[in-house]
Formats: sequence, C-alpha cells, structure tokens
Amino acid sequence: SHIYAASKQMPDRVAIGPGDDMGAITVGRQTVLMTVDQVADGVHFRLENTPLDRVAHKAVVRNLSDVAAMAAVPLGAVVAASLPETLHESQANELFDAMREVAERYDCPLVGGDIAVWSGPLILTVTIFADPAGVEPVLRSSAQLGDHVYVTGQLGGAWDETGAGPHLTAEPRLAVARALALEPAIGLHAMIDLSDGLASDLYHIAEQSDVAAEIDTTAIPARPGSNFNGALTDGEDYELCFTASGAVPTAIEDVPITRIGRITPHLDRERITAVDAIGRAFPVTAKGWEHHAHG
Amino acid sequence: SHIYAASKQMPDRVAIGPGDDMGAITVGRQTVLMTVDQVADGVHFRLENTPLDRVAHKAVVRNLSDVAAMAAVPLGAVVAASLPETLHESQANELFDAMREVAERYDCPLVGGDIAVWSGPLILTVTIFADPAGVEPVLRSSAQLGDHVYVTGQLGGAWDETGAGPHLTAEPRLAVARALALEPAIGLHAMIDLSDGLASDLYHIAEQSDVAAEIDTTAIPARPGSNFNGALTDGEDYELCFTASGAVPTAIEDVPITRIGRITPHLDRERITAVDAIGRAFPVTAKGWEHHAHG
Repeated sequence: SHIYAASKQMPDRVAIGPGDDMGAITVGRQTVLMTVDQVADGVHFRLENTPLDRVAHKAVVRNLSDVAAMAAVPLGAVVAASLPETLHESQANELFDAMREVAERYDCPLVGGDIAVWSGPLILTVTIFADPAGVEPVLRSSAQLGDHVYVTGQLGGAWDETGAGPHLTAEPRLAVARALALEPAIGLHAMIDLSDGLASDLYHIAEQSDVAAEIDTTAIPARPGSNFNGALTDGEDYELCFTASGAVPTAIEDVPITRIGRITPHLDRERITAVDAIGRAFPVTAKGWEHHAHG
Repeated sequence: SHIYAASKQMPDRVAIGPGDDMGAITVGRQTVLMTVDQVADGVHFRLENTPLDRVAHKAVVRNLSDVAAMAAVPLGAVVAASLPETLHESQANELFDAMREVAERYDCPLVGGDIAVWSGPLILTVTIFADPAGVEPVLRSSAQLGDHVYVTGQLGGAWDETGAGPHLTAEPRLAVARALALEPAIGLHAMIDLSDGLASDLYHIAEQSDVAAEIDTTAIPARPGSNFNGALTDGEDYELCFTASGAVPTAIEDVPITRIGRITPHLDRERITAVDAIGRAFPVTAKGWEHHAHG
C-alpha cells in the first residue's frame, strides 16, 4: 500500500523509512525508533469474550514485540483510544490502568494519549518509541547467504475460535533480542517479529534481503494442538524470527530458540520453500504449505 | 481520565508526562516530544461530505498543531488507519498520499504505519515526534500573574452543520510559535492549541498554572458568521492561545495575534471569567459564557 511508499523527499534524518518493524529518525546524536499498531474489536480481539486487561496487554505487547524485533530498548508510548459509548467509565479506567501496568513492566511509560467516545467498536492504537541503546537496529533486509533461520518459542494456534488463546498473554522477546544482538559470536543479521505468521513474516526478510529461505518441516516448533501449517500461517505469535551466521544458543532466559532452516540464493522460484522429512521441497506462500497441491 | 494519570514509577527520562500538548522523553542529550491524535468518521469529520484529501489534511494538521503548541519542530510521524471495507484501494491510496503530502509540507516525513481493514468507520491515528530545537517546550502550566492572554487567527464556527468548514483547511501555527518562543522580548510563558474551544483550552492553562484568566468580550476575534460564544466553545480552530509578559506583535507572518485578556490570581470563583463592555464579569465554563443566566 501507499502508506509504505517512501517519500521522494525523505530528509536525511530518516535513518529507517517505512517497511521495517520500526521507523527511525536521527536527531542530534540520537536515533529514535518508532512504531504504531492498532487493535480493534472484532479484528484483533473479541471484546465480548476477552477481559479488558487482556485487551490492554495485547495492545501494548504487539508494539513491544516490534521493539524487540529491532533489538531496541523501549523509551515510552502514547495511546489513542476510540471507546464505544457502551463502555462504562470504570471499564475505560480499567483498560488504561492495565495498559499502563504492562507498559511499565517493560519500562515503557505512557506519556500521552487521546480518547474519543464514538458509536463504533473499541480501537486502541499504541505508538512506541525506542532507543537503539548501543546496538545497530536489526533490519529485515540484512539476511545473508549462509545464515541459518531461527524462531523463539512455539508457533501456531495463538487464536482459538472464541478469540481466546496465547495471543492475549504473549510476552515481548525484548531480553532475548538484546542478548542476541549484544553477543557478536551469534552473528545476528536480520530479524522480524511474528505477527502475520511465519510464512508471511519470513517472506518479508527474504524479499527485503533479496534472498530465499528454506524451512525444515520437521524442525518447526508448533504449539501443542497446532501443526506445521498452523505455525506457518496462523499468526499473532509475537515471537521473533531471525537469521544468524554464528553459534546460537538453544534458549535465552528460558525462551527456547529453534533452528528452522537456512537462507539460500533467490533463484527463479518461491522465496520460501519447505523441505519435508525425505528431502522434497514445496513452495510456501502466505497461505501456507502447498504440499497437497504438489505432493 | 486515567489515561492522563501520571505513573507512580515514571522514570527520570520522562521530561513531560501526560497532560500537556505533547509528552517528552530525554534520551542521551536529546529530548523528543510526542503526541497522538485520532480522527474518526462521524466524530471529527463526515466522510460522506468530505473529500479524502481534507480528511487526510485534518488528521495530520491536528497533530502538527500540538507541535506548534510546544513551539517545537516536527521530526516525523507514523500513521495507523482502520479502513472500512467499503473503501476502495484507490481511495486508501489517495488518503495516504494526501497525508504524506501535507506532512511533508511541514517537513514531517511519515516513517511507518499500520493498516487494518474492518467493518467499522474510518479512523486515522497520527503520532508525531518533534524536536524542541533549542527552545524549552512551552507548557500549559507556566502562565504567570500579570501575563496577557493572546490568540492567533479567528475563532468559532470552524465546523458547519454539514461537517465542512475551516476545521478541514486549518494550517498549523508552527512558524508563529517558533517566532514567539525565539524572541525573548515577547516573554512567552504558556501555550496550548485550540482544539476543544477557547473556554476549555484556556481553562487548562489556568488550572495547570494555578491561576485564573479574565477574557475581554469585546476583544475576541470571532470568525465572520460566528460570535463570542461560538469562539469560546465551538472548538476545532487549531489556533494557538498563549500567555506572555512582554511586547507581542499584532501579527507574525500574516497571522493576526489578538490580545484577549489577562492572567489573574485564582480566587474563590471560576477559573475563567468574561468581562463585558461595561465592566461586568461573568463566569465562563466549557459550555460557554453564562451571561444570560446571570445578567
């Protein structure tokens, strides 16, 4: 969409333009990263089935996950809320108190906001600012040939049919990301957070890095109850996917890290392929693994 | 509301917390200001009667007006959009192109965004970052006894019954604000932008400065077709209201500046009073001038 189109007149201070997990602007000697995300009733949560503190949690964590994807440190946030007329003031207060609490847990104070009451559904829009804090922001576009591909945690089935599930309790992988970026032996190159689903999100890394990626179907850490295709396409995992050339630990701060594949040259084929247990390769699209169509 | 409640654990880097036109965070040697505002169909514009480029204009200018209120310089912005399913892709592109264009006119590149398509009405949420750029951010809380009160431009009637009107074409008073702040002889103390209406917005200055303000009913620059009460309460003017102790010019860059009253001690009465042509004082509330009730 045009929202991602870089301006022709982008000033020099724009260190990272639209299209990564966060944009960045350099002012004085400081670079500040920023990202915005919204959660809407009926799209990102179902208010009728979801406690308000879980809605608040998701609204904030969704953004903190983008901060993690840049290996940055949160500085602060502002929140805009469109509240349905049916929401009581005590519920609105519960919502804001819960947002403040989860943000503070990650040292990310809320420094401003805008509230409107309207006839539509609940929407919360959170904008977060972050500090690279001594680390070059980790882009989507810097995967290198020979890198392996990794994910944190478990994927798939984050959203059940009632709207509940792990997407409401995810924790942003801020500490893992900092540890990855600060250890030179790991050779961290590219990173993205998993919001749309591994297939879509790894595609962004591959496309923006002008490479391809091969996923080992037997390696994917699918959440219990989910499966390989769910892990590829369900989304809302808020885990990290990254590429690295060095020695990557199998866990950081109790968060498992799984090697799921490797970066390859981009030849005349799909950006993302999945290789099954007997070595057959199948194209992967945003809709998942086209195993059945080809197998 | 609780969204404005300062956290108990606000870290030292929060230079300006919730409750002013912008919040501020200091990182390294740099302070960065930030504010978020949303515009929603049916609340801040009427999509059926409003060209998309005007919606885009208002969404961006509303925030740039907050930047002006701090006498700061825009650095960049991120946009979140909730698009109704009925909006065509070409219309969405027109909207984003128009937002980018107006933002760029004020040297404020869009560096990121989030788009969701949903069954609700159009909402645009813009977050802007700004640089104090050598000027102490001008707070609402620093009005002083003896200051005079000024407004830029003309007030009232910015929104007509069809949803059209000057609120869709307002220009942010960035250059005026910088000129005011950079000239020591002006003695600029407190400033706010006029979005809710002069009565409400001047009340914020008075309350947060622990003073009162007296408005001269004969001095208010009401827009043609509006009147004193419209100027007090209609809102959506996106002009500046400020207090200063020195010599204030009657115009800056062709924008008229009008002295409308003075800051007084806060005694046991309304924060804002209006004094009529024969010297009678009447309380002013967010609902306007209670002349009739008392006169």
